[in-house]
Amino acid sequence: MSLQFWFEFASTYSYPAAMRIEREARARGVALEWKPFLLGPIFAAQGWTDSPFNLYPDKGRYMWRDLERICARLGLPLSRPRIFPQNSVLAARVACMAAKETWCGAYVRAVYSANFAEGRDISQPEVVDACLRAAEAPAGLLEKVADHKGLLRANTDEARERGIFGAPSFVVGDELFWGNDRLEEALAWER
Amino acid sequence: MSLQFWFEFASTYSYPAAMRIEREARARGVALEWKPFLLGPIFAAQGWTDSPFNLYPDKGRYMWRDLERICARLGLPLSRPRIFPQNSVLAARVACMAAKETWCGAYVRAVYSANFAEGRDISQPEVVDACLRAAEAPAGLLEKVADHKGLLRANTDEARERGIFGAPSFVVGDELFWGNDRLEEALAWER
Repeated sequence: MSLQFWFEFASTYSYPAAMRIEREARARGVALEWKPFLLGPIFAAQGWTDSPFNLYPDKGRYMWRDLERICARLGLPLSRPRIFPQNSVLAARVACMAAKETWCGAYVRAVYSANFAEGRDISQPEVVDACLRAAEAPAGLLEKVADHKGLLRANTDEARERGIFGAPSFVVGDELFWGNDRLEEALAWER
Repeated sequence: MSLQFWFEFASTYSYPAAMRIEREARARGVALEWKPFLLGPIFAAQGWTDSPFNLYPDKGRYMWRDLERICARLGLPLSRPRIFPQNSVLAARVACMAAKETWCGAYVRAVYSANFAEGRDISQPEVVDACLRAAEAPAGLLEKVADHKGLLRANTDEARERGIFGAPSFVVGDELFWGNDRLEEALAWER
């Protein structure tokens, strides 16, 4: 069995999912496929030019408090980013290049920690570079990112075609699960 | 400890919450306060003139499938209503009158079953009346509903003031929980 993990580095609820998914999938013998994508174009198609958590302040206030509770329960540090949502394009392009590498999980977790625990600006190449080094990725990847832009665009198109409308999302066979809350259910899903 | 259950009879995810909340609260020794309200005015304030599940078709398609999985897991029948969302004003006005009665839970469950399991139109007085009879409510309540319209308006205003933006919602002290998924967390919350 394999599970696709559709994530966006700017997405708050993707943070607790990303931090535990590799461990949980391994514990259950589920193969994990990393699927970075961008929510921006998907939200834009719904007429939103910003995160719904900014557009709908009550929802946003609730989300930050809810995320606090979730992170406390999981023992994850949380520091609300000054900029939200962050520009995740560069980090996500790199994640697409990393998707089939053994160090991908470590890189993904480093980027989420930079964004949601360390108060760093993940749009900056030096921050992405530090995340790559933390994951012990081979040197020189960032220099090649411009040659691989198409991967992220293809993932985002695929997400839209699959009816993915938010992050994190999980796909098992034809079954879609949306939200950090659904990770355990997705991992237990039998095709 | 007591828990407020904020629900809207037209709300899909309120159905699985409503069907189990009284039993779960009792099992944990938590006092339950029934808080019927209307989402319509709250959605309208966000610029929505219909359910977001109709406005955003991908989200709607996902919700119906997700609800199917949830109901299957809980052993609850589910039959997708032909009209969605249903007009819940009358049923909710009656629920406000019932909120402090011992039969309130039975009435609430009867209305949700009528809407989401039996394919009935809960805007119709005869359907609401059948739900009252199923709950063994005293006769003649429906005739008095016009005198108690203010209760539902007050609840909806209170919901908006509390920052409630969807249903079901649970409130424990100052702590807000949103979504059927959060019921167990809300019941376990220590003030």
